[in-house]
Amino acid sequence: MSVFTPVTESELADWLRNYAIGRLENLQGISAGVQNSNFFVTTSLGRYVLTLFETMPRAELPFYLHLMAHLARHGLPVPAPVANRDNEYLGTLSGKPAVLVARLSGKSEMNPGAAHCRRIGAMMAGLHLAGVNFGRKQANPRNADWRRDCARRVRPHLSAYEQAELDAELVFQAGFDLNKLPQGVIHADLFRDNVLWDGEFVGGVIDFYFAGVDALLFDVAVTVNDWCADADGRLDPTLTSALLEGYAESRPFTAAERAAWPAMLRAAALRFWLSRLEDFHRPRAGEMVLVKDPGEYRRILGQRATDTALPALPA
Amino acid sequence: MSVFTPVTESELADWLRNYAIGRLENLQGISAGVQNSNFFVTTSLGRYVLTLFETMPRAELPFYLHLMAHLARHGLPVPAPVANRDNEYLGTLSGKPAVLVARLSGKSEMNPGAAHCRRIGAMMAGLHLAGVNFGRKQANPRNADWRRDCARRVRPHLSAYEQAELDAELVFQAGFDLNKLPQGVIHADLFRDNVLWDGEFVGGVIDFYFAGVDALLFDVAVTVNDWCADADGRLDPTLTSALLEGYAESRPFTAAERAAWPAMLRAAALRFWLSRLEDFHRPRAGEMVLVKDPGEYRRILGQRATDTALPALPA
Repeated sequence: MSVFTPVTESELADWLRNYAIGRLENLQGISAGVQNSNFFVTTSLGRYVLTLFETMPRAELPFYLHLMAHLARHGLPVPAPVANRDNEYLGTLSGKPAVLVARLSGKSEMNPGAAHCRRIGAMMAGLHLAGVNFGRKQANPRNADWRRDCARRVRPHLSAYEQAELDAELVFQAGFDLNKLPQGVIHADLFRDNVLWDGEFVGGVIDFYFAGVDALLFDVAVTVNDWCADADGRLDPTLTSALLEGYAESRPFTAAERAAWPAMLRAAALRFWLSRLEDFHRPRAGEMVLVKDPGEYRRILGQRATDTALPALPA
Repeated sequence: MSVFTPVTESELADWLRNYAIGRLENLQGISAGVQNSNFFVTTSLGRYVLTLFETMPRAELPFYLHLMAHLARHGLPVPAPVANRDNEYLGTLSGKPAVLVARLSGKSEMNPGAAHCRRIGAMMAGLHLAGVNFGRKQANPRNADWRRDCARRVRPHLSAYEQAELDAELVFQAGFDLNKLPQGVIHADLFRDNVLWDGEFVGGVIDFYFAGVDALLFDVAVTVNDWCADADGRLDPTLTSALLEGYAESRPFTAAERAAWPAMLRAAALRFWLSRLEDFHRPRAGEMVLVKDPGEYRRILGQRATDTALPALPA
């Protein structure tokens, strides 16, 4: 499923000579992920994950790898990239840009309770605080500009009714300037399946390949929309409050953020409605994208736009 | 035992505001270690170890902390120091230099078998290879110069018979120049109690506060003297071969190292005989040093000096 480029044991054993992590003991493809080829790699010195980047431009990769290294250096459980004996994170294997990262322990929790949500809020605040002194800049690849452009691309594929919904939301969002809110590096895809739990602790936050600089509150909204929604897409007040309070303990929200919260929940829902529409209607050659239901985020967006009792940000 | 400087929860909670690792949940003194005050620290985001340096000069600490960070960055299981929000590893708490490091899992194995020794050899080679491109230099604090000086300090406390043994060894060592062998950053104290095992893997190599630049083979000799000796101090051929082969798979020994091996085993034994003599006869005020038996390393030194069947380095 997710090994597009095969790697043999002897190729990898040879490549590992430029690392300090011992001799190859085991190599195993991973059937998850949709954009890259991933492998579990066991050496005499430990367990790692090897990623070959199939479609991402090589020039964009240092931002992600140095971000993960920066966050790991600040004590956060993210996949720390492994430097080779030339002190570089990014190498080339089977003709593709390739990186080894530390393998993290734990598994995803798809039915989180309030305690999970509180820790995820705290973890996101930690990521945001540690990101403050990260030197590299790269915009959120799914920011407001991308949303406008993507809406133009997918609009012709929609029904008249969906077009009207999308147009109305774009008009609403055009009056809402995220750039006036506190900015920083955000994960931007902190869904439940990108978090590994090690008992009660977050053992790993993975998949930083949508990260970029944007309003910090956008990250909060993306995360709340996924972690705190019930089966109908409605926000559970207990889960939502737990997540927001966990976050605010480390980084209190500003008055501007409190005012922008309802609109931000809609912007975050719009981003995933749009990307899922594009994956559905305009699949890109060479990518085996797992097509997720765009309808789920259309419903979430509609719910956020009409909910008169949205849980507020803590003062 | 090893908390010389107390730290309160409220002091620590306050200090942690300059980190991105969440809110303090638990603080607990650790009764191990003899030079520093150590604490287990649990926050909302994970588990860490806090060290307050009681006697080490502040100016020497960045070498150790950046070395640990460098080795962790190269994928090795060492306690990675946690950077604070000013991007610094070293802070000040209760008036002492202080650092937080990632807490590693596992426990020591005091009765290692050949498989353990092979992995320790491989791990030490990994540390040596990763250390090659580490930019900072600081000499091994227990190098040949220190051994000569320390011998002068402890000699008056010895019996005539021990003095003769020591004098003979110093004459022998004076004819042996470690500087001609491959040099690099060495751990220099890779005893069994400084390695944590996580199942069959090395989960952590700890206590880098004797590390420095010296002959790489000195590290191998220190390690073999501890891991591969039987109850009488004699080297077990099976354990010794396993450790040396595990090492040589990643960094083959040179001809000069093979020639120097018997003398290096004696130099490494002498270092611990001397430091234990000094701890015993000249305890330093303000340090609660766990006095270990100097006789153990006197016997090991005598054994290495007379053993006509020492296991050789692999070709």
